[in-house]
Amino acid sequence: MTGIDAPPHPFDTAIATEYVGTHQLAGHTCPDYANMVGPFGGVTAAALLRAIERHPERLGDPLSLTVNYAGPIADGPFEITARPVRTNRTNQHWQLELAQDGAIATTATAVFGIRRDTWSALELAMPSVPGPEEADPQVFPEFIAWGRNYELRFVAGAVPDIAAAGAEPGHPDSVSTLWLRDSPARPLDFASLAALSDAFFPRVFLRRGRYLAAGTISLTVYFHATADELAAQGTEYLLGSARANRFGHGHFDQNAHLWGHDGTLLATSHQLVYYKD
Amino acid sequence: MTGIDAPPHPFDTAIATEYVGTHQLAGHTCPDYANMVGPFGGVTAAALLRAIERHPERLGDPLSLTVNYAGPIADGPFEITARPVRTNRTNQHWQLELAQDGAIATTATAVFGIRRDTWSALELAMPSVPGPEEADPQVFPEFIAWGRNYELRFVAGAVPDIAAAGAEPGHPDSVSTLWLRDSPARPLDFASLAALSDAFFPRVFLRRGRYLAAGTISLTVYFHATADELAAQGTEYLLGSARANRFGHGHFDQNAHLWGHDGTLLATSHQLVYYKD
Repeated sequence: MTGIDAPPHPFDTAIATEYVGTHQLAGHTCPDYANMVGPFGGVTAAALLRAIERHPERLGDPLSLTVNYAGPIADGPFEITARPVRTNRTNQHWQLELAQDGAIATTATAVFGIRRDTWSALELAMPSVPGPEEADPQVFPEFIAWGRNYELRFVAGAVPDIAAAGAEPGHPDSVSTLWLRDSPARPLDFASLAALSDAFFPRVFLRRGRYLAAGTISLTVYFHATADELAAQGTEYLLGSARANRFGHGHFDQNAHLWGHDGTLLATSHQLVYYKD
Repeated sequence: MTGIDAPPHPFDTAIATEYVGTHQLAGHTCPDYANMVGPFGGVTAAALLRAIERHPERLGDPLSLTVNYAGPIADGPFEITARPVRTNRTNQHWQLELAQDGAIATTATAVFGIRRDTWSALELAMPSVPGPEEADPQVFPEFIAWGRNYELRFVAGAVPDIAAAGAEPGHPDSVSTLWLRDSPARPLDFASLAALSDAFFPRVFLRRGRYLAAGTISLTVYFHATADELAAQGTEYLLGSARANRFGHGHFDQNAHLWGHDGTLLATSHQLVYYKD
């Protein structure tokens, strides 16, 4: 459905906030993008990024975003504070907070900036894998609502089969490789790219072959793509890969890479995740 | 030199700050750790981390640290604000700022927490390389003062030879692998680990075979090590590796890994760097 009378995409509804002051925005959680506890972290990251994009003092496009998930976000209204703390000639630094009833639930920092032509090189080439049409679609279990807003076609390291939980041995490594995009399809932009960079389930599920308590503590996204490169993706699948380096003492790191269907490295992301096991 | 009458290690002098209010600290840049413009980013990161470590409300040990270098830090005094914005049962979230004359030069967020025993696994094993005694020591050129505070023994991807600058072709990839430690030797702790995670020169120097204008915009460090694992390193060399994924439009990402001599993955770090070329 397109045209001016079409309803907004559920993702745009989920990340929508309204400026109620110079640096204050009001928002509301969206059940479509709920996670096991509170909203999907990617949609929170996207709402924060979108708040900056809509700020009248914003300079350029996103370069980096770090979101710290300080506490659970309850279903209901929240307030975002988005403040440009330093504006240079070609970049701008932001501090953000998301609060409910005066208690900070999320903090973030972001760098926006102007991109210009320079010498360039891609070192992390897109892996050569079968196309999305050759990979089976897979869905998260019912209790992960946000998963229904993404088409996920795994080439390697799929979501553990909940029916076999406990019986299935853990995967020998934490690597997942998959084609993914919004569902229903939606043209890619910086906000959806931020959310997609968090759309990889916790690596500890893969290693343990089952679901367990786990949650992102801190997420950092580096935006490599220009706005033109994003626009060129349209609604095509992206190829994503994710893996962890070390699990221990209740925490692990999780790195992810997202390429466009044309092989452009669009974003890299990193997160620190807690788990109980 | 040891003992209670020994002068502090230059690193401890460089990262020292003094609490002048509940959340305010006063510090001063240190010429020993100067970079081309302002201080070495790693020593700024370490000063911010140490400010939290010394805060009376601090809970646990560092889990993650993100530092955004918003503007140049001039030689002279600076003020740090370090505020715990949310304290949970097992972790604590911090917001920090470093300002000079009221202008914000650096922002940061950090997560500290309590580590506990869990299932564990190392996926990123230490590469098998010749020991530090078999690698030649290398120094940065004179204009990079902070480099003199580290012993760097490169196994691969050494600093470009400034004498050959322009004549030397760029390296085919951006990978450096090296043994490194403080000079003079200093027992490893979280603050020095934070600084060491930024002690890899900008990957664009390696690819281009020469020095050019480049600087870190945002640095994130994930601390995998427990305090006991750090203490076990003593003053031994660490093995570090660094590489970039994509260079383009004036920015590149740089990832680094640091292992202890015993193969423990101590920290992983990520940074976004601007460059002119």
